[in-house]
Amino acid sequence: AAGGGRAHRIAVVAGDGIGPEVMPEAVSALETVARLHGIALDIVPFDWGSERYLAHGSVMPADAPEQLGGFDAILAGPIGDPRVPDTVTVWGYILALRQAFDQYVNLRPVRLMAGVPGPLAGVGPGDLDIVFVRENTEGEYSGAGGRLHAGHDAELAVETSVFTRGGIERIVRYAFEHARAHGRRHVTSATKSNALRHAMPLWDECFARVAADYPDITTDSCLIDALTARMVTRPGSLDVVVASNLFGDILTDLGAALCGSMGIAPSANLDPTRQHPSLFQAIHGSAPDIAGQGIANPVGELWSGALALEFLGEHEAAAALLAAIEATVADPATRTRDLGGTASTAEAGAAVRAALGG
Amino acid sequence: AAGGGRAHRIAVVAGDGIGPEVMPEAVSALETVARLHGIALDIVPFDWGSERYLAHGSVMPADAPEQLGGFDAILAGPIGDPRVPDTVTVWGYILALRQAFDQYVNLRPVRLMAGVPGPLAGVGPGDLDIVFVRENTEGEYSGAGGRLHAGHDAELAVETSVFTRGGIERIVRYAFEHARAHGRRHVTSATKSNALRHAMPLWDECFARVAADYPDITTDSCLIDALTARMVTRPGSLDVVVASNLFGDILTDLGAALCGSMGIAPSANLDPTRQHPSLFQAIHGSAPDIAGQGIANPVGELWSGALALEFLGEHEAAAALLAAIEATVADPATRTRDLGGTASTAEAGAAVRAALGG
Ligand SMILES: CC(C)[C@H](C(=O)O)[C@@H](O)C(=O)O
Ligand SMILES: CC(C)[C@H](C(=O)O)[C@@H](O)C(=O)O
Repeated sequence: AAGGGRAHRIAVVAGDGIGPEVMPEAVSALETVARLHGIALDIVPFDWGSERYLAHGSVMPADAPEQLGGFDAILAGPIGDPRVPDTVTVWGYILALRQAFDQYVNLRPVRLMAGVPGPLAGVGPGDLDIVFVRENTEGEYSGAGGRLHAGHDAELAVETSVFTRGGIERIVRYAFEHARAHGRRHVTSATKSNALRHAMPLWDECFARVAADYPDITTDSCLIDALTARMVTRPGSLDVVVASNLFGDILTDLGAALCGSMGIAPSANLDPTRQHPSLFQAIHGSAPDIAGQGIANPVGELWSGALALEFLGEHEAAAALLAAIEATVADPATRTRDLGGTASTAEAGAAVRAALGG
Repeated sequence: AAGGGRAHRIAVVAGDGIGPEVMPEAVSALETVARLHGIALDIVPFDWGSERYLAHGSVMPADAPEQLGGFDAILAGPIGDPRVPDTVTVWGYILALRQAFDQYVNLRPVRLMAGVPGPLAGVGPGDLDIVFVRENTEGEYSGAGGRLHAGHDAELAVETSVFTRGGIERIVRYAFEHARAHGRRHVTSATKSNALRHAMPLWDECFARVAADYPDITTDSCLIDALTARMVTRPGSLDVVVASNLFGDILTDLGAALCGSMGIAPSANLDPTRQHPSLFQAIHGSAPDIAGQGIANPVGELWSGALALEFLGEHEAAAALLAAIEATVADPATRTRDLGGTASTAEAGAAVRAALGG
């Protein structure tokens, strides 16, 4: 669509906590890079979140999927608030949208950027560059389960993971396709088929079946416990990692921390069939402890914006935005405190725009 | 029992892979420390494992719980073999014994020892000293579940976590009691009650209820994803961590890696009621890749032996063994390669015995 196609329609949900602080920086960077690359964007804000829940009883309206259905992408902030139960905010928002839009891929690149101090001794930028491909619509997050004997001594709860062959095969296939398309040569499967004896052996079988279609790519399977250990001892041994919903969730928070901060990692919740809009979101939460201080790192949301541009086919603009982010975090004067810098949220955002040449 | 009580009866299962290499060192250290402290030990080996499975169709005999029932403790090696499906080895051995003996506590101290190089920059011995109290008999490891439409496109698998109020409360209570008894002042609960909306809210409620009985101990709850990140960014903020079966499994492998090697971390699978024998085991696996080379680190199994002595009431002997282990790993000449040293398994074991004065 560069230079004259129809405008990309982007829905923006700033969300709670630090969301309204980081989102303006992300939107502003998108507008800058769009202007510089001759891309038309039609950005529409949605005022959803915990305040709406406290006033009206729901985080977003019941017809939210219809309202968002016509957009090309959703740029989403975090929703979560100490006054609202977490189950309400997440099942009324992000988990609902992932399922409504069949966003079965949660793509999470994790990369130690040049100049950023990470917590691992002797691990430099080239040593930690992993793409996590997380299953995003089933598995441990099926939502199935319930409670028995509530309020009595005999009380118990069941939580049922549901894994389907179709659901596993499509995410594994996506991981291999992504690897091929990006010149990556190895795919690791996160498993726990020794203890989780019903679902994870099915996962392993599906992984092996799909892997057979990609003889050019090497593979291994690694137990989730050993995999977290491997991330801190041999991160360079990981290239693309495909994981279930919960395992991917855990591995990517750990990965973000190993890259210096939870504040930088992005995510793309994708429906690769493009029947529904995809959703782009920093992986950090609403961080009520630092909200309102203007110190949150906008990079997670900015990088998510770059992933949106990429998915929308705007490869040059995406690359330019990513380069501007990298320049900004490389300099202690323009990066935020979580990365050992001194910049405010607004200063970091301005630095990205300046690096873009905007 | 020091100095004249009846002998402690200890069953020893060397197991597979590196098990038969590290176990003689552990047994020999136990014998040495027992002799020096006037403790009588009655050690009985059990020849169970994958070879037995390949020959007779089961890893251990059907009456294994009866055979072990009269022992005071079990010192267990790893069982796992590339020729045998993992589900067979783990459900036919360690998971079966944990359930048969109602070993509902899996106690896993994780501590960066002096002189050992860990992977985290700027983190020294005092900064990483965490006791993990892992639930060990229910939750994600219930074993409940199954497959539907096997072999067809519509195939699916369900894996059901079962959490009981009694099961959660007893492990949480153990964590607080352990904290109190060992002068620890903070207990962190690992949760995921935002996404796992049935079981984890019950976990949180039980944690809050039990915590109210321990006003002298501070608490917090942390989502499992954020907790793995916190382990690498602020390990010093963790003191005692109580976690479900799966979460505890993941956190402790990560913790072991942060202490320099998977080869050092011990575990105690405890029935605190002492109706059944408790089981002590290094948390590492059978490591077929390095088996037979004499280079495996015996410390995980040796430290597990120290935990056994502790549980048997032999506090002085346990402390002496732990001190000997610490002296051994502090010196590159007596620690094994996984810790950056040069010693063989046998040399490390001999160094521990020498440090004991044996
Ligand atoms: C908010 C929460 C439900 C969510 C998840 O667990 O998927 C978040 O941690 C993430 O990783 O996007
Ligand atoms: C072997 C396996 C089933 C076991 C577990 O997951 O509990 C191991 O990883 C452990 O931590 O003791």
